[in-house]
Amino acid sequence: MAGDAVLLAAVSILSACQQGYFASQVGRARLKCKVIPPAVTGSLEFERVFRAQQNCVEFYPIFLITFWMAGLYFNEVFAACLGLVYLYARQKYFWGYSEAAEKRMSGFQLSLGTLALLIGLSALGIANSFLNEYLDLHIAKKLRRYF
Amino acid sequence: MAGDAVLLAAVSILSACQQGYFASQVGRARLKCKVIPPAVTGSLEFERVFRAQQNCVEFYPIFLITFWMAGLYFNEVFAACLGLVYLYARQKYFWGYSEAAEKRMSGFQLSLGTLALLIGLSALGIANSFLNEYLDLHIAKKLRRYF
Amino acid sequence: MAGDAVLLAAVSILSACQQGYFASQVGRARLKCKVIPPAVTGSLEFERVFRAQQNCVEFYPIFLITFWMAGLYFNEVFAACLGLVYLYARQKYFWGYSEAAEKRMSGFQLSLGTLALLIGLSALGIANSFLNEYLDLHIAKKLRRYF
Repeated sequence: MAGDAVLLAAVSILSACQQGYFASQVGRARLKCKVIPPAVTGSLEFERVFRAQQNCVEFYPIFLITFWMAGLYFNEVFAACLGLVYLYARQKYFWGYSEAAEKRMSGFQLSLGTLALLIGLSALGIANSFLNEYLDLHIAKKLRRYF
Repeated sequence: MAGDAVLLAAVSILSACQQGYFASQVGRARLKCKVIPPAVTGSLEFERVFRAQQNCVEFYPIFLITFWMAGLYFNEVFAACLGLVYLYARQKYFWGYSEAAEKRMSGFQLSLGTLALLIGLSALGIANSFLNEYLDLHIAKKLRRYF
Repeated sequence: MAGDAVLLAAVSILSACQQGYFASQVGRARLKCKVIPPAVTGSLEFERVFRAQQNCVEFYPIFLITFWMAGLYFNEVFAACLGLVYLYARQKYFWGYSEAAEKRMSGFQLSLGTLALLIGLSALGIANSFLNEYLDLHIAKKLRRYF
């Protein structure tokens, strides 16, 4: 596997760094708002940063799996670009939510749209692989002939 | 990797959709019970839906990694079937917990059982690969001769 | 993929078992401190165990992806050893946090250090693969000539 999928690997490592950044921001907000562990409530500012990070954490495995499936079964370069869009959307969401709860929506909707696209492309790629392997239909090849 | 493991990929995408569904149900419960972000308490109904989703989120990476390991090192078709059982169990758990805290147990226990089976099969498959690669013992091959 | 990466697979399954152990400890603390679902507050002891597990859950996908990337693109044996160090650090963190909030730091810092090392090694390995594939530079090979 090493060698191919290097773009997917690079975006994955970037996304891991982003998740680390989000976690560090929660730690910083904890100190700033004086929320002593194990508490996670008591300051609205801390709660916003915390919820923003929690939401990113929840969606992270969903992103990773759909991103890799889209990259391996559909197209690596296209998936890598969508992955970067997703990271941008999450960054926007996190910064927006940290400021005010209303500012979280634009980033969130962009991230959901990207995720839906990744799922759609994965499903297409997987369906094509499935037909190739189990029914010996080569749809993608046949389509390419016409273009 | 594309081509083989297509069943694992298909179940993974299905599981990503399920996680998305759980997240959307939390959003809907937020609106219905009027729990304004970033709060996550205040309504018992919302808290149940939220805890159900959180539990599914917690177990999702554990499921993904054991599912793929079982599929790659033990048997793809068998792992894919267990994956579908796990998704069914989680759906049952989520719907049960959303209704009442007591109704969460049957789905939860089924999901734990499936997960334990996936871990066991992965361990078997990995142990076999390990012995093949590092000690040059081919146990699975030798066993097959007797059946 | 089966056959190679067997050490990574083994450590992954071990880490899945550890996550299961953390989750079971939360369940046990729930019973012991009589925190009835869906509540997650009310007992400081339960909250500590719960926050410890939540933190491990948050970092688990980050660990998995950097661990696999380091193993596939840098060096499998080295990544597997770092993976074991990470699991040890998390265990120390979890037990420490369960006892008292102050006792969580040493394990946490070790886990962060290991994670940073995994990210650094992944980045090196990926950069090397990238230069090989897209620019046809074989830096690692050339370096090896001098040692």
